[in-house]
Amino acid sequence: MNSRRDFLQKLGISALALHLAPLSGWTASKNNVEAPYEGRVLRVAIMGLGSYGTRVAEAMQSCVKAKLVGVISGTPSKIKDWQSKYGIPAKNCYNYENFDSIKNNPDIDAVYVITPNALHHGMVLRVAKAGKHVICEKPMAINAKEGQEMVDACKKANVKLLVGYRMHFEPKTLEVIRMRNSGEFGKILFFQGQCGFKIGDPTQWRLNKQLAGGGSMMDIGIYAINGSRYMTGEDPVWVTAQETKTDPEKFKEGVDETIQFQFGFPSGATASCLSTYNMNNLDRFFLDGEKGFAEMWPSTGYGPIQGRTHKGELTQPVTTHQTVQMEEMAAIVFDNKQPVVPVNGEEAVKDLKIIEAIYQAAKTGSKVVISL
Amino acid sequence: MNSRRDFLQKLGISALALHLAPLSGWTASKNNVEAPYEGRVLRVAIMGLGSYGTRVAEAMQSCVKAKLVGVISGTPSKIKDWQSKYGIPAKNCYNYENFDSIKNNPDIDAVYVITPNALHHGMVLRVAKAGKHVICEKPMAINAKEGQEMVDACKKANVKLLVGYRMHFEPKTLEVIRMRNSGEFGKILFFQGQCGFKIGDPTQWRLNKQLAGGGSMMDIGIYAINGSRYMTGEDPVWVTAQETKTDPEKFKEGVDETIQFQFGFPSGATASCLSTYNMNNLDRFFLDGEKGFAEMWPSTGYGPIQGRTHKGELTQPVTTHQTVQMEEMAAIVFDNKQPVVPVNGEEAVKDLKIIEAIYQAAKTGSKVVISL
Repeated sequence: MNSRRDFLQKLGISALALHLAPLSGWTASKNNVEAPYEGRVLRVAIMGLGSYGTRVAEAMQSCVKAKLVGVISGTPSKIKDWQSKYGIPAKNCYNYENFDSIKNNPDIDAVYVITPNALHHGMVLRVAKAGKHVICEKPMAINAKEGQEMVDACKKANVKLLVGYRMHFEPKTLEVIRMRNSGEFGKILFFQGQCGFKIGDPTQWRLNKQLAGGGSMMDIGIYAINGSRYMTGEDPVWVTAQETKTDPEKFKEGVDETIQFQFGFPSGATASCLSTYNMNNLDRFFLDGEKGFAEMWPSTGYGPIQGRTHKGELTQPVTTHQTVQMEEMAAIVFDNKQPVVPVNGEEAVKDLKIIEAIYQAAKTGSKVVISL
Repeated sequence: MNSRRDFLQKLGISALALHLAPLSGWTASKNNVEAPYEGRVLRVAIMGLGSYGTRVAEAMQSCVKAKLVGVISGTPSKIKDWQSKYGIPAKNCYNYENFDSIKNNPDIDAVYVITPNALHHGMVLRVAKAGKHVICEKPMAINAKEGQEMVDACKKANVKLLVGYRMHFEPKTLEVIRMRNSGEFGKILFFQGQCGFKIGDPTQWRLNKQLAGGGSMMDIGIYAINGSRYMTGEDPVWVTAQETKTDPEKFKEGVDETIQFQFGFPSGATASCLSTYNMNNLDRFFLDGEKGFAEMWPSTGYGPIQGRTHKGELTQPVTTHQTVQMEEMAAIVFDNKQPVVPVNGEEAVKDLKIIEAIYQAAKTGSKVVISL
């Protein structure tokens, strides 16, 4: 860490991070142009080397507070590829049989679980037992019960449990939340969250009920759920939902294709949301208040996020979400930093409870009361 | 009509119409720059001299195929004002007691009924009985039964019954419909119609169940209903709906404040709609297909309408909707012109049936099958 080479390397990474993401709000990164980051670096092993794991690994190359140092995978050839690509030493490589021994590895601080949804629960419990901090992709689990068990296990093991809500650190999103908190929209009346895309390969795990725990709701609809909460600043108290399925061959029993759902909030505000695996062009948030509005479209894609309010275009910088997320998560783990919108397990359990309520509302056709 | 003064006047009106509305699609108006309109002019009496009646009268000043020639009102002072403002002869002025004698007036072809909703039914029946063509503001009636009686009465009297669906003649709207018909969006999957505004004066007739027949749905929600039909090109077969009310003092029993509703269409497409009297910034249509999308925002306000598709901005001319509507309705009455989207009574009855289904769905909380 103290060698000249490390210094230059960090300087280079920092400059790249600034190029990709002029993080005006993150003074630590800014200062780094003048002086290298001297704080503790979160050393992360990624579990699950699929497409999203790869995206996170790439994004982490621009981090200064977090560093990819290890991998956990069931596929030896992938491990080999990643080792050479990211300079990962053999001693930090694990498979699903032996990764519990990670507890004896002093060079790894945290494991980022990016497996199929249904495996999160078991894997997180093992990581917690190994005494490592946990970052878990969303949805944290396939139901609230499992989610709560994960929260409890991490608490018991005295490790942090953070969930991969990358939008919680996105600058335009944070600006809308700041405007709401400062009253610039007036009383909030309505939120709309439309999240979806047309999914490809019908054989992928995301369309397998056993592995995904559901369909579009688990993967993309959760953004509308979570967004409705951080955009309005309230948690819903009731939900109604309507499911439609045009392709029962591709979207089998228990795998939702399209669900519309509506929330009511304690203030009287309402939300209109949509989750789909069968349509493109749907990635829009809209927040309406008595004094103004915010629109974000795209609102949760990998970027660039675009938005405007009644005051004009949102001009906050375009960032690589996963880079900023990992920088901020390092600060949460080591500096106990409090993010504007929580990313902990308790927060994620709420989304799981809401998903269960949506599924119940869609199934019964009745309004379901939500108790978080 | 043949005097030099008439000629110049018409030329002036025509030039004004072109200035306000470069009607590239309406060749009759275009040709008029070179030669005055020689066809038959629809001579209209307006019934109900309120704010919307005034808007229509102003817009008609730019018409060449239609002309405001008479008034029907219960307020003598209003009649006097209109007489002097629009040059209306005393013989073409009526009140609600004596207007049945309009049947003996050879200088009036049609009556445009712009009274509170609940009065449409009775008034249209009287106009039909007087043998005059009818233009009726939307909603045509406060329920489908009355609407059908109006259709039947006009048929029996052999007069036309047209409903004030001004958006059916709006150029950007027609371009989206043209693109849909030519397959440019591919298979249609989804429509969103958000229509609403924050209504003012709590004492106005629009918030009186007896006069309005309902609340926001009757006035502004109907645009989302009608829009879902002309944008998708299908009629809905089921609806679910959720009503919320935050101000029961202003929005009394039977006067809906905010209703969300969802449609299913025969093709499998769905719609997500919202009708409200309690929020601004909601005037948006969104059409999503397998190959592309259209967004209109504002979509049904008095203008200017703005829109874009996956191919770029919609650049069709900004028009004064009521001017174009009256020009086109003159052609429908005298030339039997077939509009791209029907504006007849049968079309309007469908919207009333759908409104009844929405109210039922909101009340019962159950999915309601729609049979048109």
